[in-house]
Amino acid sequence: MGFSFEKVCVVGVGLIGGSMALGMRRERLAKKIIGVGRGEDNLKQALSLGIIDSYTFKIEEGVENADLVILATPVRAMPELVEKAKPYFRNGTILTDVGSTKLRLIQKISPTLSPEVDFVPAHPIAGREKTGARYSDPDIFKGRWTIITPCERSTKEGVEKIKSLWKSLGAKVEIMDAKIHDELLAWISHLPHIVVYALVGTLLDMERKAPLLRFSAGGFRDFIRIAGSSPEMWRDIFLENKEYVIATIRRYQKELEELAELIQKEDAKSLEEYFAKAREVKEKVQKDG
Amino acid sequence: MGFSFEKVCVVGVGLIGGSMALGMRRERLAKKIIGVGRGEDNLKQALSLGIIDSYTFKIEEGVENADLVILATPVRAMPELVEKAKPYFRNGTILTDVGSTKLRLIQKISPTLSPEVDFVPAHPIAGREKTGARYSDPDIFKGRWTIITPCERSTKEGVEKIKSLWKSLGAKVEIMDAKIHDELLAWISHLPHIVVYALVGTLLDMERKAPLLRFSAGGFRDFIRIAGSSPEMWRDIFLENKEYVIATIRRYQKELEELAELIQKEDAKSLEEYFAKAREVKEKVQKDG
Repeated sequence: MGFSFEKVCVVGVGLIGGSMALGMRRERLAKKIIGVGRGEDNLKQALSLGIIDSYTFKIEEGVENADLVILATPVRAMPELVEKAKPYFRNGTILTDVGSTKLRLIQKISPTLSPEVDFVPAHPIAGREKTGARYSDPDIFKGRWTIITPCERSTKEGVEKIKSLWKSLGAKVEIMDAKIHDELLAWISHLPHIVVYALVGTLLDMERKAPLLRFSAGGFRDFIRIAGSSPEMWRDIFLENKEYVIATIRRYQKELEELAELIQKEDAKSLEEYFAKAREVKEKVQKDG
Repeated sequence: MGFSFEKVCVVGVGLIGGSMALGMRRERLAKKIIGVGRGEDNLKQALSLGIIDSYTFKIEEGVENADLVILATPVRAMPELVEKAKPYFRNGTILTDVGSTKLRLIQKISPTLSPEVDFVPAHPIAGREKTGARYSDPDIFKGRWTIITPCERSTKEGVEKIKSLWKSLGAKVEIMDAKIHDELLAWISHLPHIVVYALVGTLLDMERKAPLLRFSAGGFRDFIRIAGSSPEMWRDIFLENKEYVIATIRRYQKELEELAELIQKEDAKSLEEYFAKAREVKEKVQKDG
């Protein structure tokens, strides 16, 4: 890719941060990688797995002299971490993140940064039903989208570097406005998660009355996987993207009610057409994939 | 298993009917298998794949002299088929089905049968996101539940035979009241499908305004698979089990609204607890599986 970073600081060595670190190492994009975190067990494991070269609990120490700082914690923890780290950023350092929501994060971080910091927000849309450094896998970004949402603190060079970093990790890259990103993600990711969480919540409640989950099969088992994602991460996503998330839920509620009404009035023809269309979408998504 | 059937008639040689036929053949439970259907292409394919020995479009012909008749069409087509076949059932034949809903089917079929027919309703809970004989696989029942819901027209011997048939195909078998079966399935299967269908319908509607599905990833791709199921089958399931399905949708709507309210009022703590509980359910289901 024509360049490599001297010192990379990964703040939050979880599945995404750890996988990025492994990928950068494999592609020789980083000479030294330091991990910043709170849980020593996780950091020690990351160290012994060769994900990072060293670790610290202090972000001030981690970012010192780093030419690339990657924020890979839950989104809502990021502004405070940046606040702490700010006085220690090297002149010209690239600051990036992997947060699933972008607009509020940019609004919180970007005005507080000195002009010497090149802030390039990004979001790898990669599977995340497991958490922790031990599941790190440099291949999880392969063929997946990473969306970069430049802000007023991004330089053209910084965006180019982050773009080629993600391409080196195998991702397809799209540049997008932060607001459009957040609306898009509300539809394709946040709404599906809310819908499944509410389903799991409903079944959990029923399970207290009668043990039914042992009979669950097929479809349910497939998509309950996503309920295994990090509770902290999803709490932050829904709160950060509140307006769009609520709007998608409202739209979904309408759709569900319409479907309930078709069943209520036994409209066999419309139901069959509805399900046939759903099958087309499924085929389209799988073909595009 | 100590017995085998001389002539088995499979009415509807789709994924389930075809898979049963292949499994029975492998386990030497059937000497001759005749398929009944409407689409000649599908029946020819079933013949050339060795799923059936012969086929006919006329159920009257198919059931003649059969000692086992398996109804494997969409549920709502079954009563009419039985009506047609009735005069031709052999004395002592076992009639079974694989329908996903049981109570209404039993209410429709059972009073019309002569006492010489041994009707043993059953439901294999197996994955069905593909349709057609060509996807037949005798292993799809392995480790999955088959629920038998005996009715007033079932003999003890008939239930035992169908039970050991399913065990031979690798299924775990549970005997259950038809009403309880229908309520259970509404929760663990019909509600999840409705929830996903409404989600796919919502996204399909949005897709018309902006192409968003190409960015879809992770969880969504996993569970959109179930939107590939047979539209006719699901139309019938929702109509046959209307009361329980509507009841589960009502309960689900309440849950979804509560979750929306937690986001609306930014109750971070409750959201995190909610998602943490969902993760527990996920782990429980996967452990039990």
